Amino acid sequence: MRGVSIIGIGTTRYGILEGQSIKEMATFACNDAIHDAGIDRKQIEAFYLGNYISGMIIRQETLAPLVGGSIGLRKEVPCTKVEGACSSASIALRHGYLLIAAGVYDIVLVAGAEKMSSAPIEKLTASLGASIDMETEGLTGLTFPGFWALMARRHMHEFGTTIEQLAMVAVKNHKNGSLNPRARFRNIITLENVINSRLITDPLKLYDCCPISDGASAAVLCASHLAKEFSNNPVEIVGSVQTTGFSTLFEQGQQISLPATILAGKLAFEMSGLKPQDIDIVEIHDCFTPAEIVDSEDLGFFEKGKGGWAVLDGVTQPDGKLPINPSGGLLCKGHPVGATGLGQIYEVVRQLRDEHENQIKGAQIGLTHNAGGTGAVCTVHILKRR
Amino acid sequence: MRGVSIIGIGTTRYGILEGQSIKEMATFACNDAIHDAGIDRKQIEAFYLGNYISGMIIRQETLAPLVGGSIGLRKEVPCTKVEGACSSASIALRHGYLLIAAGVYDIVLVAGAEKMSSAPIEKLTASLGASIDMETEGLTGLTFPGFWALMARRHMHEFGTTIEQLAMVAVKNHKNGSLNPRARFRNIITLENVINSRLITDPLKLYDCCPISDGASAAVLCASHLAKEFSNNPVEIVGSVQTTGFSTLFEQGQQISLPATILAGKLAFEMSGLKPQDIDIVEIHDCFTPAEIVDSEDLGFFEKGKGGWAVLDGVTQPDGKLPINPSGGLLCKGHPVGATGLGQIYEVVRQLRDEHENQIKGAQIGLTHNAGGTGAVCTVHILKRR
Repeated sequence: MRGVSIIGIGTTRYGILEGQSIKEMATFACNDAIHDAGIDRKQIEAFYLGNYISGMIIRQETLAPLVGGSIGLRKEVPCTKVEGACSSASIALRHGYLLIAAGVYDIVLVAGAEKMSSAPIEKLTASLGASIDMETEGLTGLTFPGFWALMARRHMHEFGTTIEQLAMVAVKNHKNGSLNPRARFRNIITLENVINSRLITDPLKLYDCCPISDGASAAVLCASHLAKEFSNNPVEIVGSVQTTGFSTLFEQGQQISLPATILAGKLAFEMSGLKPQDIDIVEIHDCFTPAEIVDSEDLGFFEKGKGGWAVLDGVTQPDGKLPINPSGGLLCKGHPVGATGLGQIYEVVRQLRDEHENQIKGAQIGLTHNAGGTGAVCTVHILKRR
Repeated sequence: MRGVSIIGIGTTRYGILEGQSIKEMATFACNDAIHDAGIDRKQIEAFYLGNYISGMIIRQETLAPLVGGSIGLRKEVPCTKVEGACSSASIALRHGYLLIAAGVYDIVLVAGAEKMSSAPIEKLTASLGASIDMETEGLTGLTFPGFWALMARRHMHEFGTTIEQLAMVAVKNHKNGSLNPRARFRNIITLENVINSRLITDPLKLYDCCPISDGASAAVLCASHLAKEFSNNPVEIVGSVQTTGFSTLFEQGQQISLPATILAGKLAFEMSGLKPQDIDIVEIHDCFTPAEIVDSEDLGFFEKGKGGWAVLDGVTQPDGKLPINPSGGLLCKGHPVGATGLGQIYEVVRQLRDEHENQIKGAQIGLTHNAGGTGAVCTVHILKRR
């Protein structure tokens, strides 16, 4: 397998992007990435687009050829939409990676996009829940705030994780996001703000939940041996893994881990020859505050049950031993579902290029973790400065 | 690139499969293919599932890990849904092909599934139209019967194609389908039946249109050098191409061809080193009767404008020079959108194994053509008996 590098990144800001359609957002992010890579768009050999709920929310499917046409790709270029709930964009990334690594293509464009803000909230909530098995747990009315509330309660019961520890994740990520011009929210919040915010699903309050957002992100991938032709600061993909979990909570048999995350982390570290302690910066799928804690343990950064304490102790702050979500994460930057995986990549690449607005000094190796549905699918990528 | 063979095929019948969910249908087809291949399911290294409108119609997304779990795949196996409207299943097939050909995997399971019959017809029609660009032509209210009616009228105007020629496609495909136990319809119809059937969109009558159907189909792919370990009658994939067209009719600039089909056919013949006259049997995307005529020309089987005459002259009958849609095609076998591409593969593999209910004697090489949306995406596969 050949080395694969990211030579261009592009994104919209995340938020309520009124008047911008999903096609426009995706086109913008792709053009931004193509411009950043300095390639001619005619050099692109394949295009993968991650998207989750566009069909359900705005009744627009078959987005990949639509956006491919809008960007002006050649008609020989296969344009493929991939879907894995919140992991959709990183599944797109993985396909670009795999097909370059295997020598099928030299240059691939990957993107993710989601338009959420134009839909009524009831439709959104129902659509977001559509990644749960609708024949079993979906029928009970379980949605994702409920899923993560159950996970949080069990984690609190087993390990003494506290409401303050959960809230501290939101406080940290909002402070980080306040520095990020791409973030939906730019306000600093306090523990008190979080704990006193509106109850959503006990024990989760409003600020424990990521906001509905619009957005699109993209990247241009290239065989590493060609990367220096285009870029002075390519970032190499040294780990790329996609695993499968469960489409319900009850099948998992426990409520303190996502098995797909544990497995994806293990395989990504094996693939890269790295260990958790080698990672300088992490973007984790913090769709809800307990998710960041659970995921940081499942990825091997902290012992099971210690993730909440790590947050409270400042270990995951930008100046801590392992900065987690210096972008602001899903909680503050926003979570346009089908775009998020590449939004995380955008932030990590900027860190590894030394050009982030919340720069972690000396960051050489970054990891992104992107989980879909009830952990039905999980992707982990490890990126390295070349 | 290594050779890739199909060592197992599986399918439900196509039709109104009351009481069978999309998960159940996909699971059945996959298990059928795994059984046919004689592999242990633990040997499967990746799973691709094509699906189009499950999110919009029955609010079930993230189907690939859901079905992967239902089949009992290992959790290391990436389970990915791909979407390209009516081409979804053949995009799944192409990904299995590509990743085995490139040496990433040895054994891959691919499937397609669609549950349509449980949705109200207005919702179905709107959802089927969601592959058209909703910011432009979709806003005009154009749906697929309208698209193909416009194509038909222009073809009639330019080349003198007749209502009888269109109708003859339906007559032929119903006769073929009457022999196929997997077909939704088993009735023989006459030219008079077609021409006197209810008007849908002038000039298309009811029998010019494929029926809404449920169904799922699957295949097990394997590196060709390993195929004989499992199968006495593997079928090699010698051409596999996915191209991009237009997400609207107006951008095409003409209404007598689908550019993505012309390009995909050309590239698939180049890839396989074969010519149109080498093909013994074809399954074409006959979603409407004019589509079979237009596609058969675009693929190079007949000169532009002569496709209608070829049907009338019996050239495309099972005993003709080039049998087209001996399965009954989408018009009679049915068109569960996200499954169809692999349904075509199922039929051709049975032909190349000499075990089809409507067997074409001596069939050695078959071609499948699967087009998505307004020709926004097109896939062509060429299969060869080993």
